[in-house]
Amino acid sequence: MKAIEKLEKQFQKLASYEHLAAICGWDQAAMMPSGGNEARSHAMSDLAVLCHETLTDPNMSTWIKEAERDTETLTDEQVINLREIKRVWTQATQLPSELVEKKSLIGSKCEHEWRSQRTNNDWNGFAENLKKVVEAAREEANTRAGLTGMRPYDAMLDLYEPGMTTEKLDVLFGELKTWLPALIQQVLDKQSSVKLNEPNGPFETDKQAALGKQMMQILGFDFNHGRLDVSTHPFCGGVPTDVRITTRYDEQDFTSALMGVVHETGHARYEQGLPKAYHGFPAGEARSMGIHESQSLFFEMQMGRNPLFVDHLAKLSAEAFNKQDDAAFSRENINALYQRVRPGYIRVDADEVTYPAHIILRFEIERDLVEGKIEVEDIPTLWNEKMQEYLGLTTDGEYTNGCMQDIHWTDGSFGYFPSYTLGAMYAAQFMAAMRKTVDVDACIEALDFAPISAWLEANIWSKGSTLTTDELVIQATGEPLNPEYFKQHLIDRYLNN
Amino acid sequence: MKAIEKLEKQFQKLASYEHLAAICGWDQAAMMPSGGNEARSHAMSDLAVLCHETLTDPNMSTWIKEAERDTETLTDEQVINLREIKRVWTQATQLPSELVEKKSLIGSKCEHEWRSQRTNNDWNGFAENLKKVVEAAREEANTRAGLTGMRPYDAMLDLYEPGMTTEKLDVLFGELKTWLPALIQQVLDKQSSVKLNEPNGPFETDKQAALGKQMMQILGFDFNHGRLDVSTHPFCGGVPTDVRITTRYDEQDFTSALMGVVHETGHARYEQGLPKAYHGFPAGEARSMGIHESQSLFFEMQMGRNPLFVDHLAKLSAEAFNKQDDAAFSRENINALYQRVRPGYIRVDADEVTYPAHIILRFEIERDLVEGKIEVEDIPTLWNEKMQEYLGLTTDGEYTNGCMQDIHWTDGSFGYFPSYTLGAMYAAQFMAAMRKTVDVDACIEALDFAPISAWLEANIWSKGSTLTTDELVIQATGEPLNPEYFKQHLIDRYLNN
Repeated sequence: MKAIEKLEKQFQKLASYEHLAAICGWDQAAMMPSGGNEARSHAMSDLAVLCHETLTDPNMSTWIKEAERDTETLTDEQVINLREIKRVWTQATQLPSELVEKKSLIGSKCEHEWRSQRTNNDWNGFAENLKKVVEAAREEANTRAGLTGMRPYDAMLDLYEPGMTTEKLDVLFGELKTWLPALIQQVLDKQSSVKLNEPNGPFETDKQAALGKQMMQILGFDFNHGRLDVSTHPFCGGVPTDVRITTRYDEQDFTSALMGVVHETGHARYEQGLPKAYHGFPAGEARSMGIHESQSLFFEMQMGRNPLFVDHLAKLSAEAFNKQDDAAFSRENINALYQRVRPGYIRVDADEVTYPAHIILRFEIERDLVEGKIEVEDIPTLWNEKMQEYLGLTTDGEYTNGCMQDIHWTDGSFGYFPSYTLGAMYAAQFMAAMRKTVDVDACIEALDFAPISAWLEANIWSKGSTLTTDELVIQATGEPLNPEYFKQHLIDRYLNN
Repeated sequence: MKAIEKLEKQFQKLASYEHLAAICGWDQAAMMPSGGNEARSHAMSDLAVLCHETLTDPNMSTWIKEAERDTETLTDEQVINLREIKRVWTQATQLPSELVEKKSLIGSKCEHEWRSQRTNNDWNGFAENLKKVVEAAREEANTRAGLTGMRPYDAMLDLYEPGMTTEKLDVLFGELKTWLPALIQQVLDKQSSVKLNEPNGPFETDKQAALGKQMMQILGFDFNHGRLDVSTHPFCGGVPTDVRITTRYDEQDFTSALMGVVHETGHARYEQGLPKAYHGFPAGEARSMGIHESQSLFFEMQMGRNPLFVDHLAKLSAEAFNKQDDAAFSRENINALYQRVRPGYIRVDADEVTYPAHIILRFEIERDLVEGKIEVEDIPTLWNEKMQEYLGLTTDGEYTNGCMQDIHWTDGSFGYFPSYTLGAMYAAQFMAAMRKTVDVDACIEALDFAPISAWLEANIWSKGSTLTTDELVIQATGEPLNPEYFKQHLIDRYLNN
């Protein structure tokens, strides 16, 4: 067997194990009774070890070297596969196993205790664990940086957003910061006179679920290869041939779950549209967290909150809840609800305009934390200062809804946050490019998403990780990431409407 | 690390992998959209290989030998664990891997094609595949027999019912055959004047599910460690800390799903009650298929069809479907429905009295098939003859509802069928023993299952596989398996009532 075939066989086995991890992870969040958690966590942890062992098999290094030596005998697909195989293998083997284990233990403890500490606004308790997490993260970042010549924070970014650097983010987010606070203020002024009519519940869970599924159907979700269920924290999981998305229902407010379903459907269609020829291989996976988020935000923000789409959504919701004569279900009112901008404490509840402020704040703090320029003790003050500067809100003494609100840092996932705003930027740029060849508004008005899907499938989904992010964006839009599209999108939607 | 500890560590890893297989298997049957099947089957197959590799790890033989040498240093629990570890390891290593692979390929093909062949009554097509399955099964049985000194069919029985032999079954079932056909006729005569009133549907699935869950609650199912869902073929799966049972609903008939839930709840409580100290080890698993079935049949037949229980069931059903004034929901009528005896073609639809006839027929055929005394071509004729002899029905030219109705033989699971009737016999014997110290009827009348559960938990569930089947039955009832209890149970319920 040729070395490339040995590699492919090993990765098919890894894909099988990861398939089981994905389904059991979904089950844990969406189906499992709580009494099953201890044994499940144990089984999942054993599976994670197995996946790591499979990826870092002692033979991998030889196989990769041999395959690289024989490049001229490989097909084009195999060359691409080899590049991505080497990338994930390199990342997986950079850390000594003692550090991997230490990180995992410290992270599990911090995350576990964070759940109650957050509820109790217990910063001191949390900080004690977080210090150890940060220490391990610095060790990780420095180790990865030492082996690659990257900056420490770049080495972390590379895990989620290959090719992205601190330098680029400093420019992108630095520029954003120059206009965002003023834009937020302008939008708030403009919206101050808007009168909102909150729809009155209760909205039965069953009906919300049926409406969500109707929306997924309209948006082209393939129910032969996926499901919608319920979990405390909505997510998109499963495997490309069986994508599992979740939402949570609030009987007093259907709007949030409904738009959440549109968001997850974006993630899901990306997964369902990944290149089948590469299924099970790194080259067949989603390109990056930022590109993944670009698809969910394309669905939620670029399409889903387009007033022409919200018109349909208002009509379908009124039908679903039998509220055709309720003024709260008018197109105007539902549109106003879905375009409401309100600075708030909680990132996951933020609207499209204020969301980047939450991300820039986190980026600036985690960048300096990983590179040792600030310490855990500095976080609350910085959080408060930046919240005031970007959103005009104070978080003095408030940790639950301040620097303790997110799960990401608890297990050391530093470098992840920027993906959210990169995703918003990519989504705006994809939409601008798509509009050159697709009459997007006419499609949305006619609820005909085939041309939109076809563009995304051809330019994004079917590419998997066969291109670098830069290549992907340039091939799809004619230029590298350009944040102007996002700025123009916000101005058009929130000021020029 | 001591050898026993190495063994225990290896088995904990195996338990984790089997945990994931159980959950993903449940998902495949109860949740997965059909488009996910190909990738899932591939992943499950890779996991099965991994489980087999883990169980047959080259070090196991040394570890077992070392642990056996150091027996005096082991705790009592470890001695028991070692015995069961050796048992499952021995069974797993008896077959050369080429035979395991051949069996798996032939079995998958036969089972897969059987699904359409059965629908088309295509005996010739099926027989062609079955011949290969039988050939491989004979090779398996002979290989296992050669290594253990057992009879070939005994070696197969031992996989499902350790300690059971053809000789014992010939006696047990031979005796049963002497009185069963006459008893069936007497019951039919007795019931010929009973007028039945079929409840009129539709019975909404949601209401049936709620009623099923109410019944599970009454029967002590722990919903913190399990769930009820829907699948085409009802089963009990998952793991002891998270037991997944399923049923299927017929909107025209609620009685079948409801009693099916009672049956699966019996399996589930056994799993939930297995000894926690041994969780993840062979000694902590259910003793045998027959003992497992004894628990489901204890719930379904011994308790569930006890007229005092059916009285409750009639009342709760009438409430659930708002049919309090419907004569079809009277205690008398629901009791008559649940005690109706009707010889039929289909084993899984059979009542308590005719069921053993289906099993004896299959036992006699598969015993001779495995030991080469008959051939696949002989099956239809034998099936027809035995159906006539035991149940007075002819299956000439009828394969779909004759010898092609079951999945068991398609993948070579010869030796499994006897468990069903052994389970019925054990259940009757357990009930007779329980009645010596528990006022079972008073408990059922009061819907107080705690004393019944306590007996089962103390005598069966908490024993796991720490005792042999014979030891278990003798400790619980004072004697080895005695089929008289089953005979007496049928006479009391169906003739002396």
